[in-house]
Amino acid sequence: MATTWPLTSGAEYIDSLRGRDLAVYLHGERVAEPVDHPIIRPSINAVAETYDLAAREPELATTISPLTGERINRFLHVAASADDLVAQNMMQRKLGQLTGTCFQRCVGMDALNALYSVTFELDAKHDTPYHGRLREFIKLVQSRNCVIGGAMTDPKGDRSKAPHQQSDPDLFVHVVERNDEGVVIRGAKAHQTGCINSHWLIVMPTMRLGPEDRDYAVIGAIPVDAPGITYIYGRQSCDTRSAEPSSLDRGNPRFSGQEALVIFDDVFIPWDRVFMDGEVDFAAMLVERFTCYHRRSYVCKTGVGDVLIGAAATIADYNGVPKASHIRDKLVEMTHLNETIYGIGIASSHQAQATKSGCYLNDDMLANVCKHHVTKLPYEIARLAQDLAGGLVATLPSAADLESDAVGALLEKYLKTRDEVDVRDRWKILRLIENMTLGRNAVGYLTESMHGAGSPQAQRIQIARAMQLDAKKQLAKRLADIEDAEPE
Amino acid sequence: MATTWPLTSGAEYIDSLRGRDLAVYLHGERVAEPVDHPIIRPSINAVAETYDLAAREPELATTISPLTGERINRFLHVAASADDLVAQNMMQRKLGQLTGTCFQRCVGMDALNALYSVTFELDAKHDTPYHGRLREFIKLVQSRNCVIGGAMTDPKGDRSKAPHQQSDPDLFVHVVERNDEGVVIRGAKAHQTGCINSHWLIVMPTMRLGPEDRDYAVIGAIPVDAPGITYIYGRQSCDTRSAEPSSLDRGNPRFSGQEALVIFDDVFIPWDRVFMDGEVDFAAMLVERFTCYHRRSYVCKTGVGDVLIGAAATIADYNGVPKASHIRDKLVEMTHLNETIYGIGIASSHQAQATKSGCYLNDDMLANVCKHHVTKLPYEIARLAQDLAGGLVATLPSAADLESDAVGALLEKYLKTRDEVDVRDRWKILRLIENMTLGRNAVGYLTESMHGAGSPQAQRIQIARAMQLDAKKQLAKRLADIEDAEPE
Amino acid sequence: MATTWPLTSGAEYIDSLRGRDLAVYLHGERVAEPVDHPIIRPSINAVAETYDLAAREPELATTISPLTGERINRFLHVAASADDLVAQNMMQRKLGQLTGTCFQRCVGMDALNALYSVTFELDAKHDTPYHGRLREFIKLVQSRNCVIGGAMTDPKGDRSKAPHQQSDPDLFVHVVERNDEGVVIRGAKAHQTGCINSHWLIVMPTMRLGPEDRDYAVIGAIPVDAPGITYIYGRQSCDTRSAEPSSLDRGNPRFSGQEALVIFDDVFIPWDRVFMDGEVDFAAMLVERFTCYHRRSYVCKTGVGDVLIGAAATIADYNGVPKASHIRDKLVEMTHLNETIYGIGIASSHQAQATKSGCYLNDDMLANVCKHHVTKLPYEIARLAQDLAGGLVATLPSAADLESDAVGALLEKYLKTRDEVDVRDRWKILRLIENMTLGRNAVGYLTESMHGAGSPQAQRIQIARAMQLDAKKQLAKRLADIEDAEPE
Amino acid sequence: MATTWPLTSGAEYIDSLRGRDLAVYLHGERVAEPVDHPIIRPSINAVAETYDLAAREPELATTISPLTGERINRFLHVAASADDLVAQNMMQRKLGQLTGTCFQRCVGMDALNALYSVTFELDAKHDTPYHGRLREFIKLVQSRNCVIGGAMTDPKGDRSKAPHQQSDPDLFVHVVERNDEGVVIRGAKAHQTGCINSHWLIVMPTMRLGPEDRDYAVIGAIPVDAPGITYIYGRQSCDTRSAEPSSLDRGNPRFSGQEALVIFDDVFIPWDRVFMDGEVDFAAMLVERFTCYHRRSYVCKTGVGDVLIGAAATIADYNGVPKASHIRDKLVEMTHLNETIYGIGIASSHQAQATKSGCYLNDDMLANVCKHHVTKLPYEIARLAQDLAGGLVATLPSAADLESDAVGALLEKYLKTRDEVDVRDRWKILRLIENMTLGRNAVGYLTESMHGAGSPQAQRIQIARAMQLDAKKQLAKRLADIEDAEPE
Repeated sequence: MATTWPLTSGAEYIDSLRGRDLAVYLHGERVAEPVDHPIIRPSINAVAETYDLAAREPELATTISPLTGERINRFLHVAASADDLVAQNMMQRKLGQLTGTCFQRCVGMDALNALYSVTFELDAKHDTPYHGRLREFIKLVQSRNCVIGGAMTDPKGDRSKAPHQQSDPDLFVHVVERNDEGVVIRGAKAHQTGCINSHWLIVMPTMRLGPEDRDYAVIGAIPVDAPGITYIYGRQSCDTRSAEPSSLDRGNPRFSGQEALVIFDDVFIPWDRVFMDGEVDFAAMLVERFTCYHRRSYVCKTGVGDVLIGAAATIADYNGVPKASHIRDKLVEMTHLNETIYGIGIASSHQAQATKSGCYLNDDMLANVCKHHVTKLPYEIARLAQDLAGGLVATLPSAADLESDAVGALLEKYLKTRDEVDVRDRWKILRLIENMTLGRNAVGYLTESMHGAGSPQAQRIQIARAMQLDAKKQLAKRLADIEDAEPE
Repeated sequence: MATTWPLTSGAEYIDSLRGRDLAVYLHGERVAEPVDHPIIRPSINAVAETYDLAAREPELATTISPLTGERINRFLHVAASADDLVAQNMMQRKLGQLTGTCFQRCVGMDALNALYSVTFELDAKHDTPYHGRLREFIKLVQSRNCVIGGAMTDPKGDRSKAPHQQSDPDLFVHVVERNDEGVVIRGAKAHQTGCINSHWLIVMPTMRLGPEDRDYAVIGAIPVDAPGITYIYGRQSCDTRSAEPSSLDRGNPRFSGQEALVIFDDVFIPWDRVFMDGEVDFAAMLVERFTCYHRRSYVCKTGVGDVLIGAAATIADYNGVPKASHIRDKLVEMTHLNETIYGIGIASSHQAQATKSGCYLNDDMLANVCKHHVTKLPYEIARLAQDLAGGLVATLPSAADLESDAVGALLEKYLKTRDEVDVRDRWKILRLIENMTLGRNAVGYLTESMHGAGSPQAQRIQIARAMQLDAKKQLAKRLADIEDAEPE
Repeated sequence: MATTWPLTSGAEYIDSLRGRDLAVYLHGERVAEPVDHPIIRPSINAVAETYDLAAREPELATTISPLTGERINRFLHVAASADDLVAQNMMQRKLGQLTGTCFQRCVGMDALNALYSVTFELDAKHDTPYHGRLREFIKLVQSRNCVIGGAMTDPKGDRSKAPHQQSDPDLFVHVVERNDEGVVIRGAKAHQTGCINSHWLIVMPTMRLGPEDRDYAVIGAIPVDAPGITYIYGRQSCDTRSAEPSSLDRGNPRFSGQEALVIFDDVFIPWDRVFMDGEVDFAAMLVERFTCYHRRSYVCKTGVGDVLIGAAATIADYNGVPKASHIRDKLVEMTHLNETIYGIGIASSHQAQATKSGCYLNDDMLANVCKHHVTKLPYEIARLAQDLAGGLVATLPSAADLESDAVGALLEKYLKTRDEVDVRDRWKILRLIENMTLGRNAVGYLTESMHGAGSPQAQRIQIARAMQLDAKKQLAKRLADIEDAEPE
Repeated sequence: MATTWPLTSGAEYIDSLRGRDLAVYLHGERVAEPVDHPIIRPSINAVAETYDLAAREPELATTISPLTGERINRFLHVAASADDLVAQNMMQRKLGQLTGTCFQRCVGMDALNALYSVTFELDAKHDTPYHGRLREFIKLVQSRNCVIGGAMTDPKGDRSKAPHQQSDPDLFVHVVERNDEGVVIRGAKAHQTGCINSHWLIVMPTMRLGPEDRDYAVIGAIPVDAPGITYIYGRQSCDTRSAEPSSLDRGNPRFSGQEALVIFDDVFIPWDRVFMDGEVDFAAMLVERFTCYHRRSYVCKTGVGDVLIGAAATIADYNGVPKASHIRDKLVEMTHLNETIYGIGIASSHQAQATKSGCYLNDDMLANVCKHHVTKLPYEIARLAQDLAGGLVATLPSAADLESDAVGALLEKYLKTRDEVDVRDRWKILRLIENMTLGRNAVGYLTESMHGAGSPQAQRIQIARAMQLDAKKQLAKRLADIEDAEPE
């Protein structure tokens, strides 16, 4: 059945993914229909929630596009104000609360916004046509309500070498042919969030490039089902539980994230979908603006944190000890840490400034400080959740045991706590905590919090660049009455 | 010489404090003229900077009053928008950078704002005339550009007892007489920031009150030189260095904070300066709104932190090791921590909501999270500053030694580092770091960061109240498919 | 084939476990032979290593028993000196290094030691025969070189109620019958480490008991294959990977821990294996001494930490960045944290004191401080390992993909880093890090570190009991010249 | 009055310091008699306590010298076993408890021990006579019961240059003349703990030296009153309070530490007191062994920590809130941190190994881990103490106010808490906490904990050297089944 655009619900979105005949590999086999694969489906459900939320709460998750005048999903909007960026954060927290995982639509949002200002400034310097092409592309995806995956991270090979120095030139995505119609690219993008469940991929360079890396300075939009693309699904901790008969051990049965290795084996991009080709001097700006947006997008994890705090509070209830002062205090600490991320993230958005293109860019220092906390605080929140959960979070038998004739009754008997608590409810909450601290969604809540949008050291480098040490030295010298201090 | 209102500069402000014949005691003696006392003067200089900044950068430190239509100092403004609250934070950080200490004018600002909405709602319930009186008072101090000290913290006596239960009823400020003209109060307020260098004091209750505490529910504005007030100056670490002949050991020679015990021995307040009298049911609201504003006002400490980061970077330069990776990394860490406070603080302001009175109130959860970090992070920043400073920060001989014939030359010889660094400049920076981590301004940067606007546990209690645990439990239960979860 | 005692190698030990017809349930089914089950076998291998180490390094892992005069495995030795306790720690760290997981033989060791002194003192008070029975039992297991599982943690039901108050009396193990031959017990023990791969279980009460809990005050030794016992295997994160065809995704293919719910359905214990029956006044002492030993036994985790530090250093090599200062610094930090646990643990052992029985007991305060760090520091070490690993640790495809014709070559191509690094070696190290931070052995390295031998709050309570606040107040009062200070 | 050796009490020790006519400068003036100077005397009292403790508790603070067969003060003993090193730690903690400050006798102890093994190995290689000379010197000071100050830290000048590269060659102590009688040295040693109150100074190089630094490789013992030495006293935070009339603001009236800049202006050392002259290849060994001992000597700070924990508990009592759960929990946390230092420190001592000389040397890794915690944990303990103290710790008026007719009664009235608490007792405890967190003894408890025996980065470098990364990589590779792993 042909898709009817625009997509207006999660259900329509899911249908739109069917029948694309993608070359998706998972556990060594080609997946016939990803939409129906039990391991993949939860990640599609998470994206679907972005559609349903837009329908349910349009003021939160939609806005009017200045480009089309139509109401669009907020994930496709180019920020025209600081408030727009704050609104993204509000929507992200809400979706984190609703899905308890990564809903995978932020990379595309942040990529569109970063490209908007970068192509504008790039065109201004090089007299190129990228910004106009991008605007047309944005209008298209807005009018259809597409999901955009941003593909940035190359495999990188030997990290001590530049792209053009690698033994294998394909370890970074690069142009292997240019012709009248467009360009042909080759290479791969690693651990791509939300690609198989997208409609379009935007490939972008992953780092600062030098003059000899010219062929690596390529940006373009590609349909997810373009010929030449292979997707190899990343396996998550406990991924196979999603394929077990019982849903009781899944923790979060409906939702999960998705990461894949995406291989581009001579994939064609027509010129009107090419937004950079060789302008190496703008690669760093693109990376910096994208990470500036994206590091603050990790406010989503505070929504996920809300779920984990709620799960920890619930298990304390179920165990019969919700009022112990140390338990209460740990819930306060989890909240304190969670709101720390939230506060700094939205501060970054509130302090946004207009770029020359009119698109707003959030505060870089605060975006980096936010993301740097994201590389630590969820781990501590997860640790505290395991503390409150008790040891059973990691020693619970399998759902098959609970549902067996042989030992099901024994488990019902011996896992009983307070009379009014159903053993299966306790089981589900324990599995949810396991899911978020060791299992499928720990990948998103922990490891991806560590490395997504740049590993911790990347933020420290950026903070170092922005910390205005010379100005601060002057402050100190003035107060200390040092003669060579410059006047205020 | 009579004061000419409004005050338009730091110099005029300082003059306005002269000749008031206050009963100020310091080191066991009554101070003839506080303005000229070497230990007190730096705290007056810090407030003076709030006047000079307003003159130098009016867009930052002044605004137009909706009450008078005149341009006023921002410290006297009632916030009419979230942006107004953010602007306070910007001004606070700047003044922290300029003074390296507490500039003591925030308590009054936050008190006026809290009173504005509280009196409005109090009048609406009790049909009282407080809000109108307050507006008149605000107009007066705006038109004169006065400094307002907020006096909240009672000595509290036995903390396990309510005000009316204390052995000595005066351990909380209370009304001892009411007559046609006004009320008479007795009691004390402890560790008052910026009182002797203010023009007015506003006394307020310090905590939730019960019906039997009626006489303790009193708010009123009192001229600093009203009859019956005694000020006993708090001694700060290293306070007497400000009275030593050489300024070299002072660290921050011009600026410091000020705290005093203020004793009200039957002080009269006329009715038109009384803003609460007996309405115990509004005491808690007043305290909560005041602390909501004030906990976010600690963004000022990030300006002070900027100075300390600058001092640490400077001493690393002077020692010849600015590029060592571990030093660079510690400066990044200090910045990361400092910006954490800043981000959460301004987020609280950005997320402000209008109260019924029209006055904006910042976000309470974020204000508490911000302040809670303030009770920890400056201590870690200070520790790192001492790390970068080297041991000499605490073993440097006295300025008198450096300036002596006997050993001055030896010190010049042996404290030399790089050829181009003046030993006296190194000395001054080391003393500045000492000042901020152990000395006079450590009181403001550390201890007052701990206890001002409520000690750490006060924030944890407030976070616990605001953390919406029930809603978070529902999030978890929904994702875990627990049947009794309420639908979204 | 009948077992020949004593067991002298890992192989003999493994054989000794065969053919016992235990009622073991895993994933809903009864396991025919646990020794051959791919999910269970790694936990048996880990215990086998305790035998092989004894053969390889007898000075480290064996000693001469004062009870028998024979050389015995150190896990069966009753500590006759502080050096004996230190030697346990050395052996534990080594086994942690060799297995990268929990080798499951410490609980029995610590239980024998705790029982040795407790039964001695119990007999002295109550004129009971337990100590002699215990000595005979110890001689037996020493002479056979058995594995002893300690079974302490009851399911506990409603944690706000004592054992005798529970709705279901079986929620704590208790005596349901006493006769001439012995006692019959009923109940369960939760998340038992190393039970199915033991020869004997020692059941013990889990907490302080009151007079009405008399039937719950029971200690006894039971053969693992005694009639009436059911074992329900705890499922670990990623447990099913051990049953996948390829070993490449297992991380640590040979070794893992084991936890099970053990149900005693009217299990008989003859009198000569009963070491407590009703003496509720000694339950707390038993728990405290056992946890005193066991909290310091977590020094084993520093051996596991050594593996994880090594894995992190290896992946940094493979990625080509081993000399970056921030990577070096993180390895230092991991080591600093790991050695913190080690230092405090062995200090506790070194400071041991003789009990009345002659058996040595380590320092309680330091044991608690050690374990309390174990509830936090491994989580931070794991976080840092994930930092150094890069995102691929959580997005790597499956081994089946790597070994497939369809995409194996693509993975070989795109996961290549430095020329000299084999992609499969990189894969294995990434899977090892995943195994220890999210997978099977994260259960042992993280969650079990949190809850084993008592959750964090249990240590804080014990530290509070031991912190001698009154003596410390006297120190302060004396130095402050407070008159009522007691003289030194 | 001539000194009678050996010194047998604190009083005799104090007398032995009189009349030496040292060139001591403090606050710009030469001090006539340091023993009687109110600012210096507390540091002498602290050393005197090492004598009185030896008299009171000989088993703790004395031992039998193998060199003389006589009972000697433990500070002068060469460690003949691991137990000797542990005994040092016990004595150090006790003295920290008794004085609440640095008692200044450890540097000499650690220097004698380090020199003992280094001179032994140096002689073995270079056929020099240093070890025998050192033994004679040790016998002398043992028989007299002298205080030895160790002088290691040179001013260092430009830290990017070696000693011989400095613009001023005197920025490191060096030999300027050699003759038949001995050597003449010139230079200075910075922030020397316990020099003016010692009998002998031992000068030692401060770092690894190269061939061109030959003249800087000098070690020798010098009487404190040798001609040519000038002492410039380091000023501590709040030092002048010790000279105020009232003792009420001193916090710890009797005890403090001492640091001075010691200048050697052509000071002669006879050959029999020279223990190294030019053997640059042994400078690094000396520094490493000294810091190995000394980094573990910081166990003393746990005794000081005991005082601060006691003070915090006392002020909680006085304020009437000792049982609040958050206060109790903070006292537990302070204890947990304090015992962390203690445990690792004594573990280092327990794990000592014999050097070739027979003298025992403690474990280097653990010594560094211990000291590294000392650079952080006391700051956190101090922060928590300020938390429990309340704001008054930094806003208390002066003792002169309390003792004045004018306002003394007001302070007595308004600082009252519980009826049974004397305001002056509360005052004293607050001043003690101030003293240890901001005042005179904060220098010893905080800043000197940071930099003494090497700043934090020095420990990280040493941990990096000792962390056996290659061996740990092998552990990981073996478990991951990587082929090139070396067999166990």
